[in-house]
Amino acid sequence: MRYVLLVSYDGTHFCGFQKQKKERTVQSELERAAFEIFGAETKVAGSGRTDAGVHAEGQVCHLDAETNIPAEKLRECFNRILPPDLRVLKSAAAPEGFDCTRSAKRKTYCYSFYFAESELPLLERYAVRIKEKPDLERMQRAAVLIEGEHDFKAFCASGSSAKTSVRTVYSVRLTERGGLYEIRITGNGFLYNMVRIIAGELIAVGCGKEEAITAAFESGERKALAKTMPAKGLRLVEAEYGVKLFETASEE
Amino acid sequence: MRYVLLVSYDGTHFCGFQKQKKERTVQSELERAAFEIFGAETKVAGSGRTDAGVHAEGQVCHLDAETNIPAEKLRECFNRILPPDLRVLKSAAAPEGFDCTRSAKRKTYCYSFYFAESELPLLERYAVRIKEKPDLERMQRAAVLIEGEHDFKAFCASGSSAKTSVRTVYSVRLTERGGLYEIRITGNGFLYNMVRIIAGELIAVGCGKEEAITAAFESGERKALAKTMPAKGLRLVEAEYGVKLFETASEE
Repeated sequence: MRYVLLVSYDGTHFCGFQKQKKERTVQSELERAAFEIFGAETKVAGSGRTDAGVHAEGQVCHLDAETNIPAEKLRECFNRILPPDLRVLKSAAAPEGFDCTRSAKRKTYCYSFYFAESELPLLERYAVRIKEKPDLERMQRAAVLIEGEHDFKAFCASGSSAKTSVRTVYSVRLTERGGLYEIRITGNGFLYNMVRIIAGELIAVGCGKEEAITAAFESGERKALAKTMPAKGLRLVEAEYGVKLFETASEE
Repeated sequence: MRYVLLVSYDGTHFCGFQKQKKERTVQSELERAAFEIFGAETKVAGSGRTDAGVHAEGQVCHLDAETNIPAEKLRECFNRILPPDLRVLKSAAAPEGFDCTRSAKRKTYCYSFYFAESELPLLERYAVRIKEKPDLERMQRAAVLIEGEHDFKAFCASGSSAKTSVRTVYSVRLTERGGLYEIRITGNGFLYNMVRIIAGELIAVGCGKEEAITAAFESGERKALAKTMPAKGLRLVEAEYGVKLFETASEE
């Protein structure tokens, strides 16, 4: 029987999602808890592998297990075992044929940053400070260029194993509230470091750099674009599957 | 010469503002940095003593020192020494006769909380989870009762050394955004634990408790009110002095 989990984590002290030999990762903590719950080695898959330091509001995971525990009770079973920076928010039986990695239709990431002369201790954990005040209108004009189907080869860190670098970005939204800026990007999939490279280019353009987006789509060359932004400003907001995975809780 | 500092900290790993013999506090970290900068024992006073775990967006401090360092450069000098969870955001020469503790005219605190079935790792650091969905209208009706000049004796933890428990609360504002609730309170001063007791009573009323505010003003008895909320949801937003302490930076 396959189960689906909605998972949230503060990525600060995780070496990313994917299991590693020695490091503390989200997958290894989930699999350790699953072993305790089901009494058997249990692989936990994720909608995607977030990097070390990247956070998640709504990572979707699945696992296969034989158990009498009702699907919706798995949430509590996991949370009794998991460390406080990792929580299962919802659990359910997976739809027929569901695969959290392969079935994802859309993902949304958010990149957070702020402008200030000194670091702001209450923002530093989940956002990155920039040293110039960005021009949101310039950023907005560049953001529009990202939207649509493009070959994002130039927006990918080396070492990616993706078969094709063509992706569709459905929307790039910029907001500012109380000095905290957010870039929210929804697409059908993302290459390695793609959101952090897009964020870096948009922020650099906001701070006066000439945009190199259109040229980068044509050349496929990483070097014309600005630098990759740090992991801690990034969070996976949502993975969507075109089907309802969880009963809406009574509170919503 | 007296200098004034605008200070922000993540209170998670501080045992409060006030210096203690062995514990890590905001005041002791500031005084340690001041000693290094000025080469002499330097007392750093604060607008008020925040408790262990309470955060500050804008704590106001002062110190007396003889130095050739321009006042506005003190910010950088402190930040080169201070730990990352404590930052001086602005520094300036203090106005004539200024005392950050005695001259404060108004202070604003904010209490943050959220409702969810499981802890949300990305909110847990600066907000407190409650287990029932609060009724904001009920909370709003109770909040109005707090406003005005009252004897807040019942809203004070034992051990307070204040001469009088009469205070004026100028406003209590409730907001909700993306599931995060905030109670923002501005007053001419606050007793020990007063904001956390007010927050506890308002949240309890939002979750169905009958309000005991008016009766508590009359009786002065703590016990009719709900329990004190935890420190981590509280932050000192601002201390106001009726004079402009800092030049507005070019970015604002």
